[in-house]
Amino acid sequence: QSKRKWFCVILARPYKSSQSGAAAGGGGSTWCGSVRGETKMSQQAANGDRCRAKVLTVETMNPNVKRVEYAVRGPIVQRAVQLEKELKQGAKKPFTEVIKANIGDAHAMGQKPITFFRQVLALCAYPALLEEEKFPEDAKQRARRILAACGGHSIGAYSASQGIECIRQDVSRYIEKRDGGIPSNPDNIYLSTGASDAIVTMLKLLVCGEGRQRTGVMISIPQYPLYSAALADLAAVQINYYLDEDKSWSLDVAELRRSLNAAREHCNPRVLCIINPGNPTGQVQSRQCIEDVIRFAKEERLFLMADEVYQDNVYAEGCKFHSFKKVLFEMGPEYSSTVEMASFHSTSKCFMGECGFRGGYMEVINMDPAVKAQLIKLVSVRLCPPVPGQALMDLVVNPPQPDEPSYTTFVKEKTAVLAALAEKASITEQAFNTMPGFTCNPVQGAMYTFPRISIPQKAIDKAKELGQVPDMFYCMKLLEEEGICLVPGSGFGQRDGTFHFRMTILPPTEKLKIVLQRIKDFHLRFTQEFS
Amino acid sequence: QSKRKWFCVILARPYKSSQSGAAAGGGGSTWCGSVRGETKMSQQAANGDRCRAKVLTVETMNPNVKRVEYAVRGPIVQRAVQLEKELKQGAKKPFTEVIKANIGDAHAMGQKPITFFRQVLALCAYPALLEEEKFPEDAKQRARRILAACGGHSIGAYSASQGIECIRQDVSRYIEKRDGGIPSNPDNIYLSTGASDAIVTMLKLLVCGEGRQRTGVMISIPQYPLYSAALADLAAVQINYYLDEDKSWSLDVAELRRSLNAAREHCNPRVLCIINPGNPTGQVQSRQCIEDVIRFAKEERLFLMADEVYQDNVYAEGCKFHSFKKVLFEMGPEYSSTVEMASFHSTSKCFMGECGFRGGYMEVINMDPAVKAQLIKLVSVRLCPPVPGQALMDLVVNPPQPDEPSYTTFVKEKTAVLAALAEKASITEQAFNTMPGFTCNPVQGAMYTFPRISIPQKAIDKAKELGQVPDMFYCMKLLEEEGICLVPGSGFGQRDGTFHFRMTILPPTEKLKIVLQRIKDFHLRFTQEFS
Repeated sequence: QSKRKWFCVILARPYKSSQSGAAAGGGGSTWCGSVRGETKMSQQAANGDRCRAKVLTVETMNPNVKRVEYAVRGPIVQRAVQLEKELKQGAKKPFTEVIKANIGDAHAMGQKPITFFRQVLALCAYPALLEEEKFPEDAKQRARRILAACGGHSIGAYSASQGIECIRQDVSRYIEKRDGGIPSNPDNIYLSTGASDAIVTMLKLLVCGEGRQRTGVMISIPQYPLYSAALADLAAVQINYYLDEDKSWSLDVAELRRSLNAAREHCNPRVLCIINPGNPTGQVQSRQCIEDVIRFAKEERLFLMADEVYQDNVYAEGCKFHSFKKVLFEMGPEYSSTVEMASFHSTSKCFMGECGFRGGYMEVINMDPAVKAQLIKLVSVRLCPPVPGQALMDLVVNPPQPDEPSYTTFVKEKTAVLAALAEKASITEQAFNTMPGFTCNPVQGAMYTFPRISIPQKAIDKAKELGQVPDMFYCMKLLEEEGICLVPGSGFGQRDGTFHFRMTILPPTEKLKIVLQRIKDFHLRFTQEFS
Repeated sequence: QSKRKWFCVILARPYKSSQSGAAAGGGGSTWCGSVRGETKMSQQAANGDRCRAKVLTVETMNPNVKRVEYAVRGPIVQRAVQLEKELKQGAKKPFTEVIKANIGDAHAMGQKPITFFRQVLALCAYPALLEEEKFPEDAKQRARRILAACGGHSIGAYSASQGIECIRQDVSRYIEKRDGGIPSNPDNIYLSTGASDAIVTMLKLLVCGEGRQRTGVMISIPQYPLYSAALADLAAVQINYYLDEDKSWSLDVAELRRSLNAAREHCNPRVLCIINPGNPTGQVQSRQCIEDVIRFAKEERLFLMADEVYQDNVYAEGCKFHSFKKVLFEMGPEYSSTVEMASFHSTSKCFMGECGFRGGYMEVINMDPAVKAQLIKLVSVRLCPPVPGQALMDLVVNPPQPDEPSYTTFVKEKTAVLAALAEKASITEQAFNTMPGFTCNPVQGAMYTFPRISIPQKAIDKAKELGQVPDMFYCMKLLEEEGICLVPGSGFGQRDGTFHFRMTILPPTEKLKIVLQRIKDFHLRFTQEFS
């Protein structure tokens, strides 16, 4: 502890450039600038050539990175973490706990892991446990199979860069079963470090060209900000198409076409990204809509990216998850042998919610074999996805079967999680729709609600005065006053003049009800304060 | 199985474009081209506008990705995997097993995991085991502490994007202890998905500018190809400086200066990458050399990237690992408060060799606070490094202490691994230096030997005829004839006209001796065949 203090003192002492000149030898250029706090470039530049700023400054860093934004973990979350620390240190706040409903982090919200999955993972981590009678045979069998596929029978060995072969085979079998027998080839499966990794890799492959020939990528608004962040990083052109809030956030091909035609004037649109079930908007696409989208992609020569990480999270009556792959193949060979597509899945969502393991996969369809070779080369640079995450992905796609000892518990746990989520989806929607100043579409699927909120003109003016967007001002105030951490709609994109926030439905039911009540109270106060 | 066959038949059938026109609706553009096999663009383009190639082809993909090369997992490794499959299917080969000495993958080569690490990981994965008496108390205590730092006490929750705070604190304490008390600030620690992830992220931050102002990055030749791959991907300028093979692959500042001055004519050199202990060359830098490098970096205004993932792997007498940070701080505040640096570490190497977990960290020194904010934003897009890998990193930096029950076993296991590696380093060097046509520097550290081999002119001509570089031709032939998988020196870079390969020293001693004997036999045969 005393060392830490000394460190701060040393670094806080302004560095005197006069000390350095001679000792620096040869080139003789020297630097100055405080290490903590702001770098005062302009002031120091005035001190003359021999006194220079740092090599790496915001002015001289990668400009694409500067353009990246990621609201789900943005300033409001940083403030939430700070508030938690203040509470721990005994600070008095109008709340005793910060509830982080900003991110789909199931376990952090109290959801329990699936027992079978964790048993197998423990067996893989410490194979001496395979001798223990306490573990069920099916868990041991799964662990033995995974270990047999690992170099030296250890999950500490690198795997093939594309992922462990028998796991890719299991993924293919899962997809075939899910899609009613439509074949899946393990060579088309790429395991990944969460779905995010695969999405970024796929976008990276797709981006090329300069100026008006630069690749354009169509994304929904509201969107999941991984997409806008990756596009900024890759200096690709983001093409917005708007979901229809008045029709339960549905996707309309006419809007896709409008958006595409507008974009063709300044870039080369080549990719269409879809999130189904929707994040942050929670809609579940109809089969008809998916067919329309596929037809559009074919006509307009767009590579389809289908983000299907919420495929088990469908709650609303009459809604069903249809995979893009299944619909594509049902449309006949004219489509199934031509439309290029990648579909993404993850261990982080659905009923398992195992975000920390960073497991995921993508399946590519109709990808040029020469491009596949380039893709394998690209993923090999990062060596391999985390093997525990690969193992977990295997368990998700190859869970206990009816004749196996862990089946009953597994089904019970899985069903309970999904039933609770369905209940919370309904509670949330109903609560918001009875609050004055709120309108909320049904949470048909996924893990979020994205209600529209009315913000009084005086609050909008106040936000402007503070240099904040109005819904950021709203959410920040909600955090400070109620300890509830949400993400402003502006972080996902929304039609001008409308305001929203994203909230997960993950808190335990009783806590969720409290959260909803507090939001209601806050909104009332907020509206009164600014009217 | 029958489904798979059907799939192949469908896809192998050439798609007839005449079927599609009408059904496609609206736009009316259609595609053609075989799905498997080569896309014959030019031929099809001749069929007219209505018959087009795929959206994503090698011609229309990201050109930076095309320039990426990664020899450690390149064509020779793909052939090795194929050979393994053929052997399994009963094919007759001049060998019964493929030995993959191409990559530093300790567990795959039979090295056993450290018991304590795996016990804690099993406890973290399946906390019900905390009730078991079989696990030692110190393992339980570590697991409880890690779980307490996880959201919902689960390693399935996302962590902070920079990594779990108490683990970053442990990393700082480890660095302080390693460096004789020089302070380390947990805010400067960023946990990562293996060291590769952190290295790529750091390079990404640093690259900017266009044309002659494009960022240049100095890397050693021979190098670890992650660097050249990342630079190609980022379209940065690679600046080569050569290690001195005649002086045990040492680094000479005069060569750094030569290389830098030459590069200044076509780019803006801003970064100097060092790997110590060296990969693939196994040298350990002297304290004096590190001081010279730091002085050079300061004079020339270069951001230092110190890849120190082999910090425990030092074998040669008289050699010692000196961290760049420690030397930097010992040079006084003129250096320690100005030179910008990042140092990288990993769970994959040293005595643990846990590659599959993808754990790692970087420590940044003197980084502009505004850039740090950008860095945190950037890593937040990928949400967080895998939590099991973070947990493992924690155990590496916070292993059992002398008063804890697991201490004796831990020290015994760690010492045994490092002693075996030291023995194998020596065996390897001695063996190569007694083989005609080989010269081999001492393997002072790391996990590889990079011997120089003589290749007869006739073999060079034969390789040219086949369109291969000569050492690739050599290594491919070695693989086919002896089942030994190495990486050609050309994958790492070498002086023109010299030839090398990289081989890990990881195989168990008895197997290593067989490998060395087979290489000797092969080399003799090869030399005779081509002379």
